[in-house]
Amino acid sequence: MSIILGPNRYGKAETRLVRVVRDGATHHIKDLNVSTSLSGDMEAVHLTGDNAAVLPTDTQKNTVYALARKHGVDQIEDFAAVLAGHFTGSQPSIHHARVEIEEYAWDRVPVSPHSFVRAGGEVRTCVVHHDRDGRATVVSGLKDLVLLNTTGSEFHDFIVDEYTTLRPTTDRILATAVTARWRHRGDTPSYGTSYERVRRSLVEAFAGTYSLSLQQTLYAMGERVLATCPEICEVRLAMPNRHHFPVDLSPFGMDNDNEVFYAADRPYGLIEGSVLREDAPDAAFAWE
Amino acid sequence: MSIILGPNRYGKAETRLVRVVRDGATHHIKDLNVSTSLSGDMEAVHLTGDNAAVLPTDTQKNTVYALARKHGVDQIEDFAAVLAGHFTGSQPSIHHARVEIEEYAWDRVPVSPHSFVRAGGEVRTCVVHHDRDGRATVVSGLKDLVLLNTTGSEFHDFIVDEYTTLRPTTDRILATAVTARWRHRGDTPSYGTSYERVRRSLVEAFAGTYSLSLQQTLYAMGERVLATCPEICEVRLAMPNRHHFPVDLSPFGMDNDNEVFYAADRPYGLIEGSVLREDAPDAAFAWE
Amino acid sequence: MSIILGPNRYGKAETRLVRVVRDGATHHIKDLNVSTSLSGDMEAVHLTGDNAAVLPTDTQKNTVYALARKHGVDQIEDFAAVLAGHFTGSQPSIHHARVEIEEYAWDRVPVSPHSFVRAGGEVRTCVVHHDRDGRATVVSGLKDLVLLNTTGSEFHDFIVDEYTTLRPTTDRILATAVTARWRHRGDTPSYGTSYERVRRSLVEAFAGTYSLSLQQTLYAMGERVLATCPEICEVRLAMPNRHHFPVDLSPFGMDNDNEVFYAADRPYGLIEGSVLREDAPDAAFAWE
Amino acid sequence: MSIILGPNRYGKAETRLVRVVRDGATHHIKDLNVSTSLSGDMEAVHLTGDNAAVLPTDTQKNTVYALARKHGVDQIEDFAAVLAGHFTGSQPSIHHARVEIEEYAWDRVPVSPHSFVRAGGEVRTCVVHHDRDGRATVVSGLKDLVLLNTTGSEFHDFIVDEYTTLRPTTDRILATAVTARWRHRGDTPSYGTSYERVRRSLVEAFAGTYSLSLQQTLYAMGERVLATCPEICEVRLAMPNRHHFPVDLSPFGMDNDNEVFYAADRPYGLIEGSVLREDAPDAAFAWE
Repeated sequence: MSIILGPNRYGKAETRLVRVVRDGATHHIKDLNVSTSLSGDMEAVHLTGDNAAVLPTDTQKNTVYALARKHGVDQIEDFAAVLAGHFTGSQPSIHHARVEIEEYAWDRVPVSPHSFVRAGGEVRTCVVHHDRDGRATVVSGLKDLVLLNTTGSEFHDFIVDEYTTLRPTTDRILATAVTARWRHRGDTPSYGTSYERVRRSLVEAFAGTYSLSLQQTLYAMGERVLATCPEICEVRLAMPNRHHFPVDLSPFGMDNDNEVFYAADRPYGLIEGSVLREDAPDAAFAWE
Repeated sequence: MSIILGPNRYGKAETRLVRVVRDGATHHIKDLNVSTSLSGDMEAVHLTGDNAAVLPTDTQKNTVYALARKHGVDQIEDFAAVLAGHFTGSQPSIHHARVEIEEYAWDRVPVSPHSFVRAGGEVRTCVVHHDRDGRATVVSGLKDLVLLNTTGSEFHDFIVDEYTTLRPTTDRILATAVTARWRHRGDTPSYGTSYERVRRSLVEAFAGTYSLSLQQTLYAMGERVLATCPEICEVRLAMPNRHHFPVDLSPFGMDNDNEVFYAADRPYGLIEGSVLREDAPDAAFAWE
Repeated sequence: MSIILGPNRYGKAETRLVRVVRDGATHHIKDLNVSTSLSGDMEAVHLTGDNAAVLPTDTQKNTVYALARKHGVDQIEDFAAVLAGHFTGSQPSIHHARVEIEEYAWDRVPVSPHSFVRAGGEVRTCVVHHDRDGRATVVSGLKDLVLLNTTGSEFHDFIVDEYTTLRPTTDRILATAVTARWRHRGDTPSYGTSYERVRRSLVEAFAGTYSLSLQQTLYAMGERVLATCPEICEVRLAMPNRHHFPVDLSPFGMDNDNEVFYAADRPYGLIEGSVLREDAPDAAFAWE
Repeated sequence: MSIILGPNRYGKAETRLVRVVRDGATHHIKDLNVSTSLSGDMEAVHLTGDNAAVLPTDTQKNTVYALARKHGVDQIEDFAAVLAGHFTGSQPSIHHARVEIEEYAWDRVPVSPHSFVRAGGEVRTCVVHHDRDGRATVVSGLKDLVLLNTTGSEFHDFIVDEYTTLRPTTDRILATAVTARWRHRGDTPSYGTSYERVRRSLVEAFAGTYSLSLQQTLYAMGERVLATCPEICEVRLAMPNRHHFPVDLSPFGMDNDNEVFYAADRPYGLIEGSVLREDAPDAAFAWE
C-alpha cells in the first residue's frame, strides 16, 4: 500500500482590509475581505515539515496590506490579479495562486465628505487564479442578492408520484437569495462597468420573467447576462427557493387571496445551474 | 424554606409574516418578524401544569396572521398595538402583552410593479406593551445601522495606568453598528414620519460630530434625536466600537497616512448610554 | 426642554483569553470570553469628549490578560471578581464594574497530556458586579444546554379561542435549549462544585418531570436547583420550545406513532420565568 | 452566439428529520439534516418551464420522511443510499441523485430512558451519489471537530521575503477546527465502526504528531486514517489555523512563557489537502 499526497493548497483566509483614499476633504473607501491560497512544490512540508518552500500565511496577509498601499484598490478583480501575479512571480516554489475577494458596499452620508453608511444588500465577489506559466482566469460574482416577485410565478404539471402532496399553483410568491458567479472570456476592460451590467441583467431577468419554475427563471437570468455582456462566457447560479406559504385562514372564517404569507426557513428548494456560450473557452481552474 | 414563582412570561417568538397588498398590478409588501409575549395569572400552569389560563403560543402565532389579514399592516408600532390590545382584551388571565417586531426593508425593482430587492442596511424594530388597565408604552428602534467616519475622530488625554499601552491619536477611523431604541412620549401621529426623522438625526449627528470619544458621539446622537423629534422622550444607544487599526507598513519601507486599515472583529469597545428629557414621563415597563 | 444623560456604561467586549497552566508535561487550559463594563463619573466624556475619567477599553483588555497572568484563572466567578475589584479600586472615576465571562469546555485527548478536543455542549457563564462601596453580586449560568424528552410530555386543556387550531396532545417530544442564570446568596465556597450541582439539577429535573406544560417543567427545574443548592437564592430560565412536529404520513398509507418528526426552526415558543426563595436578599444590580 | 445549459441540479436542502425508535420504555433518536439533489433530463424545465420531468422538491422532502418511517435510520450512509437509490429508480427523467446528511449527536441522560442532551462537538456528515447506471460513491466525514495542542508545535525555517515579519517559533499552540471527508473504496461493512475508527485516527494523529507545520500535521492525520482503515481510499482535510497569539506582557513587567494567549478570529491560516492511496479507484462524482 502506497500513500501519496493529493491536491493541496494553503493560504490566509479573510484578511479584512479597509483602504481609504484621501482626496482633500473628500474620502473614498474600499472595504474588502481577502483570501489568498497558494500551491506548488509542497511535498516536503507535508511529508517532513520542512518549510523551505513555504511562504507563511502571515506574510500573505502582510502582502495584502502592502500591495494595497503600493497599488491602491479600485476594482477587486484588478487587485486580486496584482496579488496573484505577485505570489506566482515571487517564489519558485509557488506555482499557482488563487485570490478570492469579497467587497462590502458603503453609501455616502450627504452631510459629510468622509462619512459612510454600510449599504447592506448583496456582496460583490471575485476569484482570480494565476499560474506561473502565465495562465489566468477571472470569475466575478455576487451573493446575498435577495429578490422577490409577489406574483407572476406558477408551478404545476410536475411529476406526481406516491409521495407527492404538493398542490399545483398558478400564482405564488417567488423569492430567492442569489449567489451568482460569472466567468470572463478574456480581458474585460472595466470590471466595474461589467459588474453593474451583470447585476442589472440578473435583477431585470428575475423581475421580468413570467415564471413556470425557478429553473426557468434561473436560466433566463443566465441567458440575459450572456446576451447583454459580451465579455462573459459562463454564468453559474445557486438559487435557494425561499418558500413563502399562504397561511390557511379559513379556520377563522377569512379568505387569503395571496395576502398573508409565512416565510419559511428550512427546508428550502435549492436550484443550481450554469448557462454558457457554446464556444466558451476551456475553464481550466477558474471555478476551483 | 419557601420557594416561589417570580416574574414570568411566555409567547411565540419569531413568527415570520410577509403581508402583500395588491393594488391592481402594483403590489406592496411588509416583511416582519413578530414576537409576542404574555403574562398574567400563571401560577397554576407553573406549579401544577394546569393550562386553563394559557392561550397557546400556537394561537398567538395564528392571531398574528389573522389580524394581519383583518387589519392590514402599515407601521409596525400600530400593528403591534393591535396585537397587544387584542391579547389583553381577550382573556381574563392575560394581564399584560408585549409585542416585538422587526421589519426588513425592500426596494422596488424599476422594471416591474411587483418585484422587490431586499434593501439590506438597518432593521427597523419596535416593542409595544399593553396591560389590561389600559397602560401602554411604545419604543421604536433600529439595529445594524453601520456607520463610519474616515476622519474627524480623536482619542487622547485618557487615564493612563500601569496596564495602559494605547497611544493617543488625533486622527482615526470611527465606526460602529448602531442599535438604537427610542421611547415615545405619548401618541405619535405618524410612526413612519417619526422613524425617518430619528434615523436621519442619528446618521447626521454621527457624521457631523467632530469626535473626541465615542461616548461624545453617542450623546450627540441621542441629543440630536430629542432636539428634532418632540414626540420622543428618551433614547437608548448601544454602539460597539468597530476598531479599524492602521497597519504598520514601516517594515516594508512604506508610510501609512491612515490609508490602509485592518478591520478587527473581537474584542471591541462597547459604549452604551441613554439620553433623555428631564421631564420624561415614567418609563413603566417600556424597556423590558 | 432640558436634555440629560441617563444610565450609561462602557467597556471592552469579548476579549478572548486562553490560559495555559504547564504542570510538567501535563497542561491545563481555560478558554474564556471576557467582557468588562465600567460606569461612574462619566458626564464630561459624554458632554464634551473630555476623557480624563476614562480608562480606555484597550486598557481593560490588557488588564484581563495581565491579571490572568498574575492570578491565574480557576473558576470564572473568582476571576471575574478579581477583575471587577481591580477596576473599582483603581480609579476614583470608576464607581462600578460589571464583568461577564463565558467559558468553553475542552476534554482531554487520552493519548497526550497536552492535547484537547473542544467539548461542545453548553457554555458556562457568569456576571459579577462590584461597586466601590463594596457591594458585590454573583450570577452564574449556562447557555445552549439542549435537552429533549421523546415522551412524558402532554399539552391540553388550554384556552381555546377563535384563533386556536392546535389539537391537544397526550404524548409529544419536549425539547429546549436552556439558558439559565442563578444568583448566589452570598459567598459560595466552590463555584465549580456549585456549577456541577446546578447543572445536574437542571438536567435531572427536565428529564424526571412528567410534563403537562413547558412552564411546569421550567418551574420544576428552578425549584430543584433551589432544593439542592442552598447557596443559590434565585434562578432565571429562558427556554425556547424547540417544536418537533410529527409528520403526517397518512397520505402515503403509513401511520406515525411518534416516530418521525420535523424539527422546526421558527417560530418557536419561548418560556421565561424565575424561581426564588421567599427570603432571597435584594438583587440590587445583579441581573443587569 | 449560441447559449446553452450547462451542469445543473435541484433538490430540497436541509430537511430536518428526527427519528425516534421506541424500544419499550427505552427510546433511541437520530437527529439529521438531509439535503437531496437530483439531475437528469432537465433541458425543458430550464428552457421553457415545462415541469414534466421535475419531481418537486416538496416531494423529495416527503420522501425523506416516508422512507425514514419505512426503513428506519441507522447509519447515515445507509439511509442516504436508500434515498439515492429510490430517486434514481423512480423516474426516468432522474439520472443522478446526490444525498447529503448531517447527523447531530445526543447523549443519554442517566436518570431516564427517554431523555437526551445534545452532545455538541463535531457533526458527522456523508455525501452519497447514485446514478441510474448503478454507479455509486460514498464519502463520509465530520466537521467542527476542534482540536488544540498546547505544545509540541514549531514553525520556522520558512521563506522570508520582503513582506515577512513573522518570527520563527519553537513552541506554539496549534489549534484547528477539522473538516474531514473520506472516500470509501467499496462496500464498507459497518459505517458506524468505520466512523469511530477514522475519528480516533484523526484525533490521535493530531495529538501525537510533533508538528513542524500544520501541513505536516494534516498529512499525518490523513495517512493515519489510511493506515488504520483499509476501507478508505482517500481523505480530504480542510484545517483552519486558529491562531493563538501569546500576549506581550512585558510592558507590565511580566513574562509570558506560553501561558496567556489571545485567540484570534480573523484572518486565519487555511490548510487544505488530500491524502490518498496510489491505487485508489477513480473518484467519479464522489466529491461533487
